[in-house]
Amino acid sequence: MGPMHDDSIVIDGLIVAKWDRSIFEDMRKGGLSAASCTVSIWEGFRDTVANIADMKKLIRDNAELVTLVRTANDIRQAKKEGRTGIILSFQNSYAFEDLLGSIEAFADMGVRVVQLCYNTQNLVGTGCYERDGGLSGYGREVIGELNRCGVMVDLSHVGANTSREAILASSKPVCYSHCLPSGLKDHPRNKSDEELQFIAHHGGFVGVTMFSPFLRRGIEADVHDYVEAFDYVINLIGDDCVGIGSDFTQGYDKGFFDWIMHDKGRYRRLTDFGTILNPEGIRTIGEFPNLTRAMEQAGWPGSRIEKVLGLNWMRYYDEVWSG
Amino acid sequence: MGPMHDDSIVIDGLIVAKWDRSIFEDMRKGGLSAASCTVSIWEGFRDTVANIADMKKLIRDNAELVTLVRTANDIRQAKKEGRTGIILSFQNSYAFEDLLGSIEAFADMGVRVVQLCYNTQNLVGTGCYERDGGLSGYGREVIGELNRCGVMVDLSHVGANTSREAILASSKPVCYSHCLPSGLKDHPRNKSDEELQFIAHHGGFVGVTMFSPFLRRGIEADVHDYVEAFDYVINLIGDDCVGIGSDFTQGYDKGFFDWIMHDKGRYRRLTDFGTILNPEGIRTIGEFPNLTRAMEQAGWPGSRIEKVLGLNWMRYYDEVWSG
Repeated sequence: MGPMHDDSIVIDGLIVAKWDRSIFEDMRKGGLSAASCTVSIWEGFRDTVANIADMKKLIRDNAELVTLVRTANDIRQAKKEGRTGIILSFQNSYAFEDLLGSIEAFADMGVRVVQLCYNTQNLVGTGCYERDGGLSGYGREVIGELNRCGVMVDLSHVGANTSREAILASSKPVCYSHCLPSGLKDHPRNKSDEELQFIAHHGGFVGVTMFSPFLRRGIEADVHDYVEAFDYVINLIGDDCVGIGSDFTQGYDKGFFDWIMHDKGRYRRLTDFGTILNPEGIRTIGEFPNLTRAMEQAGWPGSRIEKVLGLNWMRYYDEVWSG
Repeated sequence: MGPMHDDSIVIDGLIVAKWDRSIFEDMRKGGLSAASCTVSIWEGFRDTVANIADMKKLIRDNAELVTLVRTANDIRQAKKEGRTGIILSFQNSYAFEDLLGSIEAFADMGVRVVQLCYNTQNLVGTGCYERDGGLSGYGREVIGELNRCGVMVDLSHVGANTSREAILASSKPVCYSHCLPSGLKDHPRNKSDEELQFIAHHGGFVGVTMFSPFLRRGIEADVHDYVEAFDYVINLIGDDCVGIGSDFTQGYDKGFFDWIMHDKGRYRRLTDFGTILNPEGIRTIGEFPNLTRAMEQAGWPGSRIEKVLGLNWMRYYDEVWSG
């Protein structure tokens, strides 16, 4: 790794990999100080608790590589110890089911980021792949509990109306943990200039992803296209509320993509990504140092690189997780 | 209150009341530093999480009276602040269902004492009101997780065979949180001299209850009969591993007793208590100072009173909850 990458706190705000030791080894190779790791997508309450237990066992069994994150200081400590902090996060609030009390329970278990909807409608609101009637009454109560319990609200896969109302309803900063700008490629999952500005102007955060179907050049993209996407977002909203949210799906095969792309894992198909291939130069988590190098090659000042690599996420985590 | 009661840490190792503000007010009147409060009996996983959420909201809404206990030091702090520490506990391990991972989840939520079985057979072993084939294989794994997660194993309503095997299987001290000696009254829920000695000789703890159907004089008993039961147990196993486990059911009506006395809350009747009436002088939680006075009247040295009122429980909580 270069000195800039090596010295920085590096945070990936969204990884949804097939969790095993090899992923943790690649996180260390990539110099990640922490990663927000998906442990619930379509699963209900009980299966999500089982996923969390599995992840905690995997963390215990690989304690020389990783450690569970409960506070932003745990990330600073992980960085010092040369381990990667694992942040437990959901890509859907369905795991709460109809039980508001489950939110504090999951917060107690260590869950720190929850996306309100995953692609389609749930009890809280609607995802980005269907007509979106906005935030439900229960959704407002869910946001209140997430705020109270120090869990960050994520809106990446959430529809435009629900997102806008959630941004206004939340008393704490919310995020798009992993998104790309419509200004570079029009896609239901990408965010318009107005949406990016709206979240930023309301104190929120934007994590930039590199999922090739949403990038301007698709599977032709390389790590410099990823930096281009950062530049587009930073030109729009500045460099104080922007960070990484890679959306690495490392280790998964077609069965996983079939599962995520059908409503509730099994019903109608929501979209078709075609070939999925991460940008050249950052095809794997272990190649993260190439992203830092590409930022340097793009002429970014060191202060901007440090902020986007991790310091910005840290500031938001510190604020939101304090409850 | 007398000075002895007022100055001591007073812990009730088992209360299963109808939780509301009036119970908390009576805990303050009774000078309780902490109480182990039942939040699951027949309920499954999800309903137990809902019970915990309800209890936590009740604690938040009455924060001038009570506070949630996660460590033994939280009890010391509660005593200093003039509040009662609420220890979350289960009277059944059924809430874990078939999900070992739920044990760490409940520990994260603050659950600190779990009785393995309630009266009848479950996945772990068998209760005291039916033939007891002993600890299951899954039961051994449950005890391992409870030990690892710093949750105390309780055997009060557990059958003799399951209890004996659990005492041997646990790497941490276990307890009968609320029981009475068969030596004073023969009853399936009471423990023989051999059972009391067995748990004590293996480093375990005995909380003494005063539930009138199990007392020598039944509903004729008064607070001095409760002290008699303590004396019987202390004569048998000494005064270092004995404490209070009242089993107050304050606020509940017949519907509750029907529910607890039928298997799984609804099937065959397991026993019939007849009239339930706490001993005169300690009919309510607020009368706890009378117990201390009765101990003084019985000629107990101050050091014994302090130990039985709370210091013994504290030593065990410190050891077991440290995980």
